[in-house]
Amino acid sequence: MTRLIKNIKRRELLRQGVTATGALLAASALQANGRYMGPPVSVSGERAAEVNLKRQTLALTHSFTPLQQLHGIITPSDLHFERHHSGVPDISEENYKLLLHGLVERPLKFTLAELKRFPAVSRICFIECAGNCQDYFSLSAETTAQRLAGQTSQSEWTGVALSTLLKEAGLRPGAKWLLMEGGDAALMTRSVTLEKAMDDAIIAYAQNGEPVRPSQGYPVRLVLPGWEGSSCVKWLRRIEVGDQPWMTREETAKYTDPLKDGTVRQFSCVMDARSIITSPTFPQQLEKGWHEIRGLAWSGRGRISKVEVSVDGGGSWEPAELQQPVLDKAYVRFRKMWQWDGKERLLLSRATDETGYIQPRVKQLIDIRGQGSLRYHNNGVIGWRVNPDGSIYYDPVV
Amino acid sequence: MTRLIKNIKRRELLRQGVTATGALLAASALQANGRYMGPPVSVSGERAAEVNLKRQTLALTHSFTPLQQLHGIITPSDLHFERHHSGVPDISEENYKLLLHGLVERPLKFTLAELKRFPAVSRICFIECAGNCQDYFSLSAETTAQRLAGQTSQSEWTGVALSTLLKEAGLRPGAKWLLMEGGDAALMTRSVTLEKAMDDAIIAYAQNGEPVRPSQGYPVRLVLPGWEGSSCVKWLRRIEVGDQPWMTREETAKYTDPLKDGTVRQFSCVMDARSIITSPTFPQQLEKGWHEIRGLAWSGRGRISKVEVSVDGGGSWEPAELQQPVLDKAYVRFRKMWQWDGKERLLLSRATDETGYIQPRVKQLIDIRGQGSLRYHNNGVIGWRVNPDGSIYYDPVV
Repeated sequence: MTRLIKNIKRRELLRQGVTATGALLAASALQANGRYMGPPVSVSGERAAEVNLKRQTLALTHSFTPLQQLHGIITPSDLHFERHHSGVPDISEENYKLLLHGLVERPLKFTLAELKRFPAVSRICFIECAGNCQDYFSLSAETTAQRLAGQTSQSEWTGVALSTLLKEAGLRPGAKWLLMEGGDAALMTRSVTLEKAMDDAIIAYAQNGEPVRPSQGYPVRLVLPGWEGSSCVKWLRRIEVGDQPWMTREETAKYTDPLKDGTVRQFSCVMDARSIITSPTFPQQLEKGWHEIRGLAWSGRGRISKVEVSVDGGGSWEPAELQQPVLDKAYVRFRKMWQWDGKERLLLSRATDETGYIQPRVKQLIDIRGQGSLRYHNNGVIGWRVNPDGSIYYDPVV
Repeated sequence: MTRLIKNIKRRELLRQGVTATGALLAASALQANGRYMGPPVSVSGERAAEVNLKRQTLALTHSFTPLQQLHGIITPSDLHFERHHSGVPDISEENYKLLLHGLVERPLKFTLAELKRFPAVSRICFIECAGNCQDYFSLSAETTAQRLAGQTSQSEWTGVALSTLLKEAGLRPGAKWLLMEGGDAALMTRSVTLEKAMDDAIIAYAQNGEPVRPSQGYPVRLVLPGWEGSSCVKWLRRIEVGDQPWMTREETAKYTDPLKDGTVRQFSCVMDARSIITSPTFPQQLEKGWHEIRGLAWSGRGRISKVEVSVDGGGSWEPAELQQPVLDKAYVRFRKMWQWDGKERLLLSRATDETGYIQPRVKQLIDIRGQGSLRYHNNGVIGWRVNPDGSIYYDPVV
C-alpha cells in the first residue's frame, strides 16, 4: 500500500516537473486536496488523532465518563466510568467459573461458554455510582460535567437473565436474598433481593456488542437495571441464595445514607430520577444567539416522562424535547433551543419519571435527609452559570 | 501504583516466610487467587487481551464486521464495516467545511462547530453495503457470517437533520435531487432524492456517542437510514441541490442491478428486509441438546414485524422471539430455542417487515431479476448446514 501511494506521488510529481526540493511541499498540498489514495481498510478503525476522549481519573479508584463530549445515549465501552475497590483483576475465560449455591435445589457451576448457551437477553440501560455528584459542594466553578457527574454511563448489555439460572438451579423455601461476590481482591460483595433478581437482573457477558471489558467486569458482570453501580458486581464469580441480606461492608459501612436523625437508609439501591445539562457547560465559551441546550436524564424507576429546563435559576421552567425512543431505566437525550441574550443566566434541568417522581433541588434533599446524605444518592438539580462574557461555570445551586 | 503493589506483595510474602527463590511462584499463585490489588482505573478501558475481535479485510477496499462474535444490536465503532473507494482521507476539523449550494436561496458553508450548533438528532440505524453477500455462490463452506454478510453494521448516529440545513439555505423552485460529494480522492459522489433528504437524512458527526471515526467519514458522514451504504457518503464535503440526478459513476456503472431483460434497476437505494443467523454458524462445533438460534434482521423500509426460523431447510417455519424494542430501519436481534437431535439439519431464517415484504429465497431473486442481479441487493435467505458430527458450514441455498 505504502509503495502504491509512493509510486503515484512520484509519477504525479514527475509529470508536474517539480524538483526534488519542492517535492515534499507539493506532495503534502496535493494530499490535503484529497487527490491521493489514503490508507486502506483495516482490522480496527481508530479515532481521529485530534480527538481527545479520556476518562478522568481520581485516585486509583474512580474514573469519570466525559459526558460533555459525548452525543446520543450510548457510552463508548472504553469510556464507561469505573469505581474499583481493588483494581482490575486479571481473569481469563479458561479459569473463570460462576458458582450458584445456597438455598437452591441443585448447586451449579457455569463456565462462560455454558452461560452463553442459555437464552440471552439484551437491553440498553444506564449504570450509575451511588456516589455520583458526591463532591457537589467541594468542587470549583471550573468543573466539567465529567468530573461532577461522570460516574454514570450507558451500554447495551447482553447476557443470561439471572431468573433463568435460578429456575435452572431451583429455589428452596425461604429464598429471599442473593449474595453477589466479585472476583477482585476486595471480593466486592453485595446483597440483592430475590424480587430484583427474578425481575430484570442480567448476568452480562457482552457490552455494546463485544465482550465486557476487564475494567467493567470481564468476563461477567451483574447488571441490575436502575440499581446503584456497586450492586452491579463486576467479575461476578459467586451467587449464594439465602433468606436475609448478608450485611456486607458495602451495604453497612458504605453505600448507606446517614439521615438527620442519626439512622441510615440502607439498601437504597434504586437510583432516583436525575438529569444533567451536558451542553453548554464548562469549559465552553458561549456566543450570543441560538443554542441547543442538551443533556441526559434517567431514572432507575422506569421511563423519563418529562425534562424541564430553566434559564433563570428555576424562576420559570419549560419542557425540553425528548429524543425517541424513551427506554425503561435508560438515558434519554433532551434538547431545548435557547436564544442567549448576553445576560447572566443560570441554566438548570429537572427530570420527572413515569412514577411521577420529580428530581429535587439539593436543598430539598438536605432538608429531608441532612447534609450527610449527599455522599450517596445526591440526585439534586445541577446548575451552570452563564456569565456576560460568555464563560460558563459550574454552580452548586441549592 | 506499581510500588504499592510491590510493597504489599513483599510484606505478604515476608509474613508468609517464603524465600526469595519461591517468592515469584507464590506471588503469581496469590495473584491468580485475586488477593492482590489489580491495575487501577485508567483513561481508557481496553479489551481483554484474549478477546480477538477484528474486521476481516478484502483487498484494500472492503472490511467486514464479525457478526458471529457480536451480541445485541450495537456494533462497536472500531468494527463497523468499511467499503472505501480511495482509502481514508486525512481530514482535520481545522480544514473541514461543508458546502451547501445549487438550487438554494442562500449558499452556505459550515464548519464542524457550526454544524454542531444546530438542533441535533440521534437515531440507531443500520448501514449496509449494497454489495453485501455478493460472493454468495463463490464462497466455500468454511465461510463465516462475517465474510458472507458482514458488510453491515449498526450505530447510534448523531448529527443535524439535513432538512434543517436545507430550510436554513432555502430551496429554490425545481429542487428535486441532491448531489452528495465525499472528500476522499475518489470524490465518492451520489445523488439523493429531495424526499429522502427532507425525511430522515442526518449529517452525522457522532457515532455511538463519540466523533465519527476516520474510516467511517470523520468529521462528517451522510446517514440515510435504510439506504445502501454507498449513498451514505463519508467525509461529506459538498451538497449541491439540483433538479435531476447527476448520473455519477457510482449510480450508473456501479450500484445498479442488471436485470434479465438487459435493462438495469437504477437508484435501488432502499435495502430490502434481510436476516441472518449469527449463531450457530461456521466455525462453531455443536453438541446435541438445547441451543438458542440467534441472529439479526433488518429492513430499510421500516420495522421488522416477524422473523421465522426453519431447521429443515424451509420445510417448516416457526416464529422467533424479537428482542424489544424493535426500532425503525434498525437491527432486531431474534432468538429461537432449538433442541438439536444430532441429525443433519439446514438452518434458515426469514424476515418480514411492517410493509408486508417477506425476505425472498435466492432462487426467487434470480427468477425475477436474473443471476447478474446478485452483485447488489442479494437479500436472499441464508443457510447453515449442521452435520451429524456437529460441524456447521455455510450453505448457499437457493
